[in-house]
Amino acid sequence: MAAESLDVVGIGNAIVDVIAQADDAFLARQGLAKGSMRLIDAAQAEALYAAMGPGIEMSGGSAANTIAGIASLGGTGAYIGKRSADELGEVFAHDIRSIGVRFATAPLQHGMPTARCLILVTPDAQRTMGTFLGASAELGPDDVAPELVRAAQVTYLEGYLFDPPRAKAAFLKAAELAHAAGRKVSLTLSDPFCVERHRADFRALVQGHIDILFANEAEIGALYETADFDVAVRAVRGHCDIAALTRSEKGSVVVTAGTTQTVAAEKVARLVDTTGAGDLYASGFLYGLTHGRDLASCARLGSLCAAEIISHFGARPEASLKALAAKAGLL
Amino acid sequence: MAAESLDVVGIGNAIVDVIAQADDAFLARQGLAKGSMRLIDAAQAEALYAAMGPGIEMSGGSAANTIAGIASLGGTGAYIGKRSADELGEVFAHDIRSIGVRFATAPLQHGMPTARCLILVTPDAQRTMGTFLGASAELGPDDVAPELVRAAQVTYLEGYLFDPPRAKAAFLKAAELAHAAGRKVSLTLSDPFCVERHRADFRALVQGHIDILFANEAEIGALYETADFDVAVRAVRGHCDIAALTRSEKGSVVVTAGTTQTVAAEKVARLVDTTGAGDLYASGFLYGLTHGRDLASCARLGSLCAAEIISHFGARPEASLKALAAKAGLL
Repeated sequence: MAAESLDVVGIGNAIVDVIAQADDAFLARQGLAKGSMRLIDAAQAEALYAAMGPGIEMSGGSAANTIAGIASLGGTGAYIGKRSADELGEVFAHDIRSIGVRFATAPLQHGMPTARCLILVTPDAQRTMGTFLGASAELGPDDVAPELVRAAQVTYLEGYLFDPPRAKAAFLKAAELAHAAGRKVSLTLSDPFCVERHRADFRALVQGHIDILFANEAEIGALYETADFDVAVRAVRGHCDIAALTRSEKGSVVVTAGTTQTVAAEKVARLVDTTGAGDLYASGFLYGLTHGRDLASCARLGSLCAAEIISHFGARPEASLKALAAKAGLL
Repeated sequence: MAAESLDVVGIGNAIVDVIAQADDAFLARQGLAKGSMRLIDAAQAEALYAAMGPGIEMSGGSAANTIAGIASLGGTGAYIGKRSADELGEVFAHDIRSIGVRFATAPLQHGMPTARCLILVTPDAQRTMGTFLGASAELGPDDVAPELVRAAQVTYLEGYLFDPPRAKAAFLKAAELAHAAGRKVSLTLSDPFCVERHRADFRALVQGHIDILFANEAEIGALYETADFDVAVRAVRGHCDIAALTRSEKGSVVVTAGTTQTVAAEKVARLVDTTGAGDLYASGFLYGLTHGRDLASCARLGSLCAAEIISHFGARPEASLKALAAKAGLL
């Protein structure tokens, strides 16, 4: 895979997920708001882990999941994110490289352990997350490899990067590099609480620097401080070239300066775990966009990828998305 | 949970599984015989891991899976096995304790890393395993806590313990302690190649010291050097009180001195990964046995637990086996 031919480079928090089943009473006891992501420190992570049930460990991280989806569709991707030189860091690096994604960020030595996200999946398939950022928060501007950003049609950034200060600087550097090279910059708002924490920054960013925005209903509502989806659609129109807004089973709405297109959600036989739904929607959408598809086709690819990921535990594809998309007549 | 009231204590290699999808060509390139377990050293494990696709990490180990199944059925279990004081060792300890299993074996300090089993699942749902024993091979007689063995109705031993010499000594100590306390000793033959490696030892053991034997068709055939299942049944009869012989979709056959009962396999809607089928059959069977059920009911419980485990990736239950068994009218 030559660097010249990259579809998307993703930059995000390099995280290993620990997925366990839990019930609503457990979330209440732990003071966790269902469906949200909460940042926790090492001691909180230890306490939550001690209280939760048996887990499945697998590579995660929002932008990394998106890039893994693009690779599964047959696209070319690269990833930039910080893990530690420990066992879980090795797992993270192995998994993303094994699917053909370029990943060369130097691991953190002798510092914090690799980030982990404790994911509690309730019987309604919702996921609630406690994230210990660990080594991932040490991502800095020097880790942003300019040749990757220049080589990629799209640089994809996760909003979660705004939490650690050095990662935010890396984020801004990547966005500048991409635009200077005539490339597109894409952002996912990641989480409504993340938006609350950084609303002013995100608004300025979306208005001034983002070409393709991903958000779900709660996130776009948080950005524009409204519970009315239509109000949020009017607010975001024109702030970025494309806003792809996901609404779970109601499908997604793609907003440009002059158009609004609604695309139905893909049917799911058995909803198991919604972790990664947004990440994989972005995979399909960005794969379509970097392969010359119209916006409705991009959204359909996004829905297809999201449907695969929510049919099983974990946020990395179990099936070949390329094969699924071909079967659905989308490739 | 008082030590006085244990149903089963399992002793085995404490292993974290790394589960990845692979095709037959991959197995051929790696020189792996489909369906088998092969011992590999650290360098071989590294090479195989580098070649394989993205993995899911989750606690495994044959006897540990069995005990996890007993806990999921509502039984009381304990586990003895050696992991290292590293990240994967912490995962192993957390997972088994979080389901209420007593696990207090001291972790190995400053030695080999926690054992891992690289499991390649082919599209036909068969699993092929490369096991790096690491710290698990350091299990020794001193790790066998006499109070646990004396407290448990059944001491359950995995044949894999015969590979590392100190673990074999631990195995024999546990069997002696159990019998001295008037308890039952159960063995699974684990793997046909493992039986080949230790046939004479296993035959002497089965004939002299084992009350309840678990084996699949290939394993019991390897023990008695026959490809004819009926010949194997005749050979094992009388060598131990109960032999529970599993035959995949053909169900299982329970052999005692005077009886032979065949119990159908449970129907599986979607066969995904056969890892753990034998381990979980033993869970159901031993739960039934330690709760006063007749042998046919024990076998039915075994089949039910095996059916749950092969319907998803991984060898630990995703659903409550207690709830499943209740629904099936078996509890």
